[in-house]
Order: sequence, then C-alpha cells, then structure tokens
Amino acid sequence: MEESRRGGGEEKEIEESVVSVLEEAKEIQDSVSVHISKTLSDEQPLRQRALVLDSKIISLRSSLDSLLSNKLIQPSLADKLDEDLQRARCIIVDGDASYLLPGHAQGKFLRMFLGPINVRASRKDVQLKVKEEYNSYRDRTALLFLLFPAALLILRSWVWEGCLPAFPVQIYQAWLLFLYTGLALRENILRVNGSDIRPWWIYHHYCAMIMALVSLTWEIKGQPDCAKKQRGVQLFLQWAMMQGVAMLLQNRYQRQRLYTRIALGKAKRMDVVWGETAGVDGQLWLLCPILFILQGFEAYVGLLLLRTAFVGVASEWQVIFCGLLLVVMAIGNFQNTVQTLLVKSRFKAKMKRTKSKQRLN
Amino acid sequence: MEESRRGGGEEKEIEESVVSVLEEAKEIQDSVSVHISKTLSDEQPLRQRALVLDSKIISLRSSLDSLLSNKLIQPSLADKLDEDLQRARCIIVDGDASYLLPGHAQGKFLRMFLGPINVRASRKDVQLKVKEEYNSYRDRTALLFLLFPAALLILRSWVWEGCLPAFPVQIYQAWLLFLYTGLALRENILRVNGSDIRPWWIYHHYCAMIMALVSLTWEIKGQPDCAKKQRGVQLFLQWAMMQGVAMLLQNRYQRQRLYTRIALGKAKRMDVVWGETAGVDGQLWLLCPILFILQGFEAYVGLLLLRTAFVGVASEWQVIFCGLLLVVMAIGNFQNTVQTLLVKSRFKAKMKRTKSKQRLN
Repeated sequence: MEESRRGGGEEKEIEESVVSVLEEAKEIQDSVSVHISKTLSDEQPLRQRALVLDSKIISLRSSLDSLLSNKLIQPSLADKLDEDLQRARCIIVDGDASYLLPGHAQGKFLRMFLGPINVRASRKDVQLKVKEEYNSYRDRTALLFLLFPAALLILRSWVWEGCLPAFPVQIYQAWLLFLYTGLALRENILRVNGSDIRPWWIYHHYCAMIMALVSLTWEIKGQPDCAKKQRGVQLFLQWAMMQGVAMLLQNRYQRQRLYTRIALGKAKRMDVVWGETAGVDGQLWLLCPILFILQGFEAYVGLLLLRTAFVGVASEWQVIFCGLLLVVMAIGNFQNTVQTLLVKSRFKAKMKRTKSKQRLN
Repeated sequence: MEESRRGGGEEKEIEESVVSVLEEAKEIQDSVSVHISKTLSDEQPLRQRALVLDSKIISLRSSLDSLLSNKLIQPSLADKLDEDLQRARCIIVDGDASYLLPGHAQGKFLRMFLGPINVRASRKDVQLKVKEEYNSYRDRTALLFLLFPAALLILRSWVWEGCLPAFPVQIYQAWLLFLYTGLALRENILRVNGSDIRPWWIYHHYCAMIMALVSLTWEIKGQPDCAKKQRGVQLFLQWAMMQGVAMLLQNRYQRQRLYTRIALGKAKRMDVVWGETAGVDGQLWLLCPILFILQGFEAYVGLLLLRTAFVGVASEWQVIFCGLLLVVMAIGNFQNTVQTLLVKSRFKAKMKRTKSKQRLN
C-alpha cells in the first residue's frame, strides 16, 4: 500500500515535469519563429539601402568618367572623387554589409558536388578565416608538392634503377586528383564569399583535375623500353617540383597581402584594399621570372609529350590528351599572369599620380 | 567662360553626391553592425533555453526508464509520457529552434574538401530543400546507374564482340568516382544539418570512392584471353545494374517518407517523425528481398574477383583489393540493413502496443 502511494507521488511528479517540458518546447519554438521573422524584416530595409547605394556608386563612377573625358572636371578632383567612391564601395563590399549584397552566384561546380547548400559565410570575420585557412592549406600542400615528386625521382635513380613502378606514381596521381578537387571547391567557395580570384585559376584547377584523372588510366609500366616510355612522366615530375617552389613563394606573397588586409581592416575596415600592394613589391620581382620559367617548362613538357605520341614511343590517347592540356594550361597561365601584372602596374601608376598631385596641391 | 562655369556647377554637384554616398556607406556599415550584434544577443537566451530543455528531456527520459524498471509507474502512463517527451524533442530538433542546437560536428571529410566553411542551413525549410534535392540527385543518378552499365554490356556483346575496350569502361569508372564523391559530400552535409543517416552508408560511399579510384588504374585490356580477364568487370557491371534498380526503389521509399514529413510539418510541425513509417510499409517488403539479393551478389562478385586473382588469371593488386572491398561492403550493408529493420519493427511494435492500450483505456 505504501509502496504504491510513493509510486503514485513520483508518477505525478514526472507527469508534471513532462507536461511543463512540452509546454516549454512549444514556447521556445514560437519565440524562435518570432525572432527569425523579426531578424528578416529588420534586414530588409538595410538590404534595400545597400543595394541602392551600390547602384548609385556605379552610376556616379560612370558620370565621373564622362565628365572627365569631356574635360568638365579637374583631373585632380576627379581622382579624389574616384578614390572616395572606391572607398565607399569598400565599406559596403568588405564590411559587415557584404552579406546583404548578392555575391558571385554559386556556380555549377559547387552545385554538382554539394547540391543547393549555401556556402556563403554571413559574417566578414568568418570570410577572412576561410581565406586564411585556404592559404594554410596551400602552404601544406605546396610542401608535399615539392617533396612527393622529389622522393619519386630520387627513388627512381637510387632504388628502382631508372624505372618507376606503377603503384607509387598512381598514389601520387590520386593525391593530385584529390588535391585539385579540394582546391577547386575551396576557390569556388571563396568566390561565393566575394573573393576577386580570377576565374582562370579555377579553370586551371579543373584542367589539372582532368589531367590527374586521365593520367591515372595511363599505363606507365616500362616494357620494352622503360626510359623512353617514362620520359614524359619524369619531365612531369620535374615540372611538379618547380611548381612546388613557385607555390611556396606565391603563398608567402598572398599571405602577406591578406595579413595587410586584416591589419588594415582592424584599424579602419574601409581602407582594406588600399594596402593590397604595400610591402610586397620586392617579392613580385622574384616571383614573376619563376612563374614565367614554370609556364615555359609546362608548355615544353606538353609539346614533348605530343612528340613522343606522334613519334610512336607511346601512342596512347592519354599522352596526346595530357600534352594538349599542358600546352593549353601554359598559355592560359601566361596570359593571366601578364594581365594581373598589367592591372597591378596600372593601379600603382595611378596611386603614384594621385600622390604626386596631392603633393603639388 | 560660360563652359567653365557650367563645368564648375557639375563639378560641385558630383562632389556633393560623392560626399553623401560616402556618408551613407558609413551609416549603412554602422546600422548593419548594430543589427548583427543585436541579433546575436537576442539569440543567446533562446539558445540557452533550448540547450537546457534538451538536457532536461534526456534526464526525464532516463528517470522514466528507471521508474518503469522499478515498477513505480504504470506502463500505459510511461508510454504516454515517453511519447510526450519524444514530441517535445521533435519540436526542438525539427523546428525552427534546431539551428540553435549544436548539430553533428562537421567531420574530417568535409573539412578535407571544403575547409572550415559552415554548411549548416540556418533555417528548417532550407534543410528540407537540401534533403529533397539530395533525393532528386539520387533519382537522376539511379537511372544512369541502370543505363550506363546496361549500355556497356549490350555494346559488349553486339558491337565489341565480347571484349570491352578500355576507354568507355574508364569513363564509367571516372563517373562512379565523381558520383560517389558527390554523394559522400552531400550526405555529410545532410548529417551536419541534423539528418539521422547511419554513418555506415557514408563509409560505404567512401569505400565505393576508393574502389572507383583503384579500378581506374586497373588494366582491362584483353590480351591474351579477354573473356576470362574481363569476367570480373562483367560481373561488376551486372551488379551495378541491379544496384540501379534497388536505388530507384529505395528513392521512392525515402521520398515518400520525406513528403509525409513535410506534409505533417506543414500541418503541425512537432508531429513530424510520427509519419515516418506511415503508408510505406508495403514497399519495404518489396525493397528488402532485393537489397538482400544485391548484398549477396556483391559478396559473390567480391569472392569471384579474389578467386580469379589467386587462380592467376589476373593477379594485379587491384583485383585483390577490389575483391576484399566488395566483401567488406557487402557484410557492412547486410549488418546495417538488418539493424535498420530491427529498429523499425521495434518502433512499430511500440506504436501498436500504445494504440491498443489507448483503445483498452
């Protein structure tokens, strides 16, 4: 009798707790819905203002250009106003408001692999974190980029008696495939988050993905004449090592740019892009020749592969395909490096012009 | 004189516009920062409440279990309270509040490919959209899963005289690699978004990715005895066709579950999971035997590959590796299908028990 009464008390207690938990859950659900819809409706006017301002900046810039070309405005004033407009755009695009503006659309590549999930970070500090992680990912891979083919080449001459076995080369190619897929995905994500990365560099990684995939199917087993058949592979590995060095240098350069941006952003967020070329010009003069040599070597390896294919040492379609792809990639890389340098030097000339004018005034 | 004055007027006008644009940009930046920090601070107490409630539900459930095992509560009441607790948990986990709770952590796989970007959808309707797109992606691929190997097998006997050429098979294997990578990424994203997908199915896709990669390096060129050497490939293609059929059936089943969930969610969000097994039991009896036959065939293909490797027709490491992988995958699939069925039947038995008790009461 007493047992059952005690049981009854505990029964009642837990029943009440469960009822209150259920009530609380419903209340939380309601509060959260209210919170979400309130946040969205608060955001709406801000988004509207940001969009209007963005289009106003664009139209002001074009009328500034037309005034300047009709000589209806003093060049020094036009430069100053242009700078102000750029500054205003930076505030909107690099500041907290950036998530309100439509970014680069999420391209087909991301959709193909990830589906319709949104990869846009809603806050600027997260975006910077993503970029920083991308750089450190590149750093880590650049080292492997250097060491992996170096190890293969050393083992080839010391252990494997001039003839690479298929398995380690295939491991290397699979790693390249994984690496380039990761890079292409990350770069697409950066682009969605407002990075101004040139589309070519992403296409370049698509090409590299395809090449890694194709080279996986490429028989390199050495009979009858190993040295001749593997000449292409050997050149490719040497080129990969050079690319490792170039990547390490490039990363140093990019990282310093980013740190300048972050530092300036902390001091005064709107001045972010002004520091882009500060303090890294010296390195560019080391980086550029290496990049051009690399591109020349890339084209050379491609042409050599094409020659081996047509001379008939290795007439598989993979050889021709990889050769063509390498040549295309070398041309594209060259073109885009030159364009980047032109933009940079134009920007620098303009900055100089503005500064000397400011001094004159 | 007049020109210059007119120019001066336009100069002044545009200067004023630029100044006001710059002001507006700063104002927007400030408003957005305020908005963001306000949203975050509004969210904080809601998040706290949701977390507290979540842990309260867990502790109530365990005390309910201990009361029941000590016979201090009537079984019918315990069932009802258990149901209420599940309902409360559904409100929190499936409702708008879900984004406040910590989800499954973003695993290494996503980090490896995407970096630190957050793939959690902040709103429940987006999460459902992601799941729906995943299902339609599976639908599209299931058709290809059926047609691609079918085409290869038909061409083999009608055009290629019993001997598959390497290129189309490699295209197929590259497609499999791409497909499984996409599936694994999407499933990881679903999991981050609160899906209860069993980890095994994701591991299964990792295995399938590795197998596709390995099979790309696998020479299938037919000399000297094509039919014998390609026996493994042929079996693999037949198995792939069967899998296409099973995927189509599975998708129908999953899709109906999701639609039931969405429909119930619209009517009364908290009742979401109660409809999970409604109306699809009939299909399960068609699906299950097919799944078991498929798993048996998978193991058979694996063992056959191992035999061909050890008998010495094709003694490459790829054959042994793929054989082992297929056997492991078959065992894992079998185990997990059985476990899923057990959970389902236990859930159904419980529902029946509750219903019959409610009728008795």
